[in-house]
Amino acid sequence: MIMHHVVVVGAGFGGLEFTRALAGAPVRVTIIDRRNHHLFQPLLYQVATTSLATSEIAWPVRYLLRTRKEVTTLLGTVVGVDAEAKRVLLEGGDAIAYDTLVLATGARHAYFGHDEWEPFAPGLKTLEDATTIRRRILLGFEQAERESDPEKRRALMTLVIIGGGPTGVELAGTIAELARDTLKGEFRNIDTRDAKVVLVEAGERLLPGFKPELSAYAKDALQRLGVTVELGRPVSECNADGVVFGGVHLPAKTIIWAAGVAASPAAEWLGVAADRVGRIIVEPDLTVPGHPEIFAVGDTAHVAWTGGRLVPGVAPAAKQQGRHVAETVRKRLAGDAAPRPFTYKHDGDLATIGKRAAVIDFGRIKLTGWIAWWIWGIAHIYFLIGLRNRLTVSLSWLWIYSTGQRSARLITQGAQGGDDEADLPAGPHDARSLR
Amino acid sequence: MIMHHVVVVGAGFGGLEFTRALAGAPVRVTIIDRRNHHLFQPLLYQVATTSLATSEIAWPVRYLLRTRKEVTTLLGTVVGVDAEAKRVLLEGGDAIAYDTLVLATGARHAYFGHDEWEPFAPGLKTLEDATTIRRRILLGFEQAERESDPEKRRALMTLVIIGGGPTGVELAGTIAELARDTLKGEFRNIDTRDAKVVLVEAGERLLPGFKPELSAYAKDALQRLGVTVELGRPVSECNADGVVFGGVHLPAKTIIWAAGVAASPAAEWLGVAADRVGRIIVEPDLTVPGHPEIFAVGDTAHVAWTGGRLVPGVAPAAKQQGRHVAETVRKRLAGDAAPRPFTYKHDGDLATIGKRAAVIDFGRIKLTGWIAWWIWGIAHIYFLIGLRNRLTVSLSWLWIYSTGQRSARLITQGAQGGDDEADLPAGPHDARSLR
Repeated sequence: MIMHHVVVVGAGFGGLEFTRALAGAPVRVTIIDRRNHHLFQPLLYQVATTSLATSEIAWPVRYLLRTRKEVTTLLGTVVGVDAEAKRVLLEGGDAIAYDTLVLATGARHAYFGHDEWEPFAPGLKTLEDATTIRRRILLGFEQAERESDPEKRRALMTLVIIGGGPTGVELAGTIAELARDTLKGEFRNIDTRDAKVVLVEAGERLLPGFKPELSAYAKDALQRLGVTVELGRPVSECNADGVVFGGVHLPAKTIIWAAGVAASPAAEWLGVAADRVGRIIVEPDLTVPGHPEIFAVGDTAHVAWTGGRLVPGVAPAAKQQGRHVAETVRKRLAGDAAPRPFTYKHDGDLATIGKRAAVIDFGRIKLTGWIAWWIWGIAHIYFLIGLRNRLTVSLSWLWIYSTGQRSARLITQGAQGGDDEADLPAGPHDARSLR
Repeated sequence: MIMHHVVVVGAGFGGLEFTRALAGAPVRVTIIDRRNHHLFQPLLYQVATTSLATSEIAWPVRYLLRTRKEVTTLLGTVVGVDAEAKRVLLEGGDAIAYDTLVLATGARHAYFGHDEWEPFAPGLKTLEDATTIRRRILLGFEQAERESDPEKRRALMTLVIIGGGPTGVELAGTIAELARDTLKGEFRNIDTRDAKVVLVEAGERLLPGFKPELSAYAKDALQRLGVTVELGRPVSECNADGVVFGGVHLPAKTIIWAAGVAASPAAEWLGVAADRVGRIIVEPDLTVPGHPEIFAVGDTAHVAWTGGRLVPGVAPAAKQQGRHVAETVRKRLAGDAAPRPFTYKHDGDLATIGKRAAVIDFGRIKLTGWIAWWIWGIAHIYFLIGLRNRLTVSLSWLWIYSTGQRSARLITQGAQGGDDEADLPAGPHDARSLR
């Protein structure tokens, strides 16, 4: 008997959770990702800001699935889907036949028609993105230490973060602390506390998905850390000299893009309808219209929620969808093909501001300050996958918390400011909420 | 009064130890390195073989020297020395005047006239080298999992290490364990235990600097781990298909170069006599002939030892030389300009074979087996610089020792086998002995 073959594309939160939830089902599974590792994206900003090492937030996919003998993990890049022949097409010419296909291909940062900004304002989606940003932040201070021209020095010590969502808020707060605490006293020609950290947001408040009072708290907390918060200021230009927002040019050597994402090209592979940022507009049961054997989850899927909103692009949503699809596949294999609409359960939103404050929105309960920070920290350690990483991340954070020192202040890859790799990101989800 | 200005080029073991030993002297110090971090090179092979994270063996130079207010740390690449004007020339056009200059610029791997082999057989001197080798080792298994042609699969699962010194022995042993223990059972189409790990040495025994009985022990221990040891086999070709040694072509996808190093171009900067591998032939007091204000230490210096041998290119030798030069500079500042010849004190040699055995040669005492391994481990943890890294490295090793799992199995930079960066190494010393 030939087993039903399930192919999963993407080993982010959605694809991995689907695969886990399918344990014991009478199927063969092949999970394909273009990276060998699952990435815990909610902590990626901590790699970019020297707090955590890359290996503390990433695990080999095949290690995570090692006990599942019916699951084959493949490192490969999917370049298309032949829905008629039911085959996934890989770079290099291989094709893999499926009976059921789950697309969990995630999102990458997007520049909304300004791809030419990317070399000047890298985004944060992959481990390479994080080490690129880490290198740029640290190189700015290193070059300022050697620079005698005060104007050039000021530009080298100006860091601009574009986008006031959770990633932008977290980056701005941590970079401010890096300059004020961690690096303080290590330079002889500059004072790192003079660094200018600017958070630019096009909308009228930070954390637009949160309650307004939490947005206001985040703004105050960032300003207390010395961050300049610029609201209602759309960016109109990024280049090697700096950034233009609200008609003003700010000379800046380090610019980080946290302003937007677009879905993977999964909709193009299938030739189906997508929304403005490329997500497949799926049926209520998360199948692709016209293809009941193909599901899309996480950032690949456009799913309606309540009040005209969409299910947000966060890790818990992707995981819930993964579990839902696994249950649907199980039921189908048992002969129950009735559509099962997906319902999203929102657990809350949270974001940290440096190492002393956070904002949490559980709906009825809203928390700010140090107690929110501790809840954030404990929740994230809890959801880290491996026991060992929980231990080492706890140790890293305790160390930073008590000494102000950070463990991963390395300038690697093109140490002297050489070219960055333009590595396409690996799919998984952004993740900002609890669970 | 203008302070005496000491410029140190290179923040490896020699340059850093010199700077530390100079504490309290009435001088200004500038230490220049092209990397922002001091690298604990003796453990670099553990990054290449997925046991340790990059940040566990590297620390920012300016962090290590943060309390020394008279020391300025500069990230920069030295491209020459104007000995007449007493100025160090930096890439980009800057020049830094010195009164005393210490050249501690280290070595890089060398292909003895076959630089065309480098793309196929990367060496191991920098963090980027280590992550490049890590990526290649892991990618070989990933591609083998997808390969259906048995011949191609065999080449993908053949790993060749060229050079039977301590680095080659340590790499071969750890790679064999990776294939036999760590990765076992995680693949579905291949058995990683079928991997062929080959250690090729041109000479008649491994570890040529050690006593012959330790060489024999190392060979036996490697063979017990499944490593094929090829002695008396000079390599005559490396290319994309594999490697030719002793007239035989072995198809292999992963080749690692551990066969030789050459000194930095410091001798060329000064136009002084150098030995075959580029080390400056220094005076007995470690000054450069004709330039009493310029010292060379570590792999930059050719220094006679006993029995016609040279002081070996190991960390303890570089550190001893750094301390010796610091003492000479102190004496000179106090008015005592008498030459002070350097005498090397050899503490011992050691190398590990996997995670159960090591060889240690203390001269009178020779140790092998697990007790040598534990001494090796404790000694290395002791000599790691930061308290925190001692803790995290201990934790990493305990984890590997007890579970067989490794923490840093990440394929990063050019995840799909793209181009590697050709990053020039950063100077510091190879280090193989105790201290």
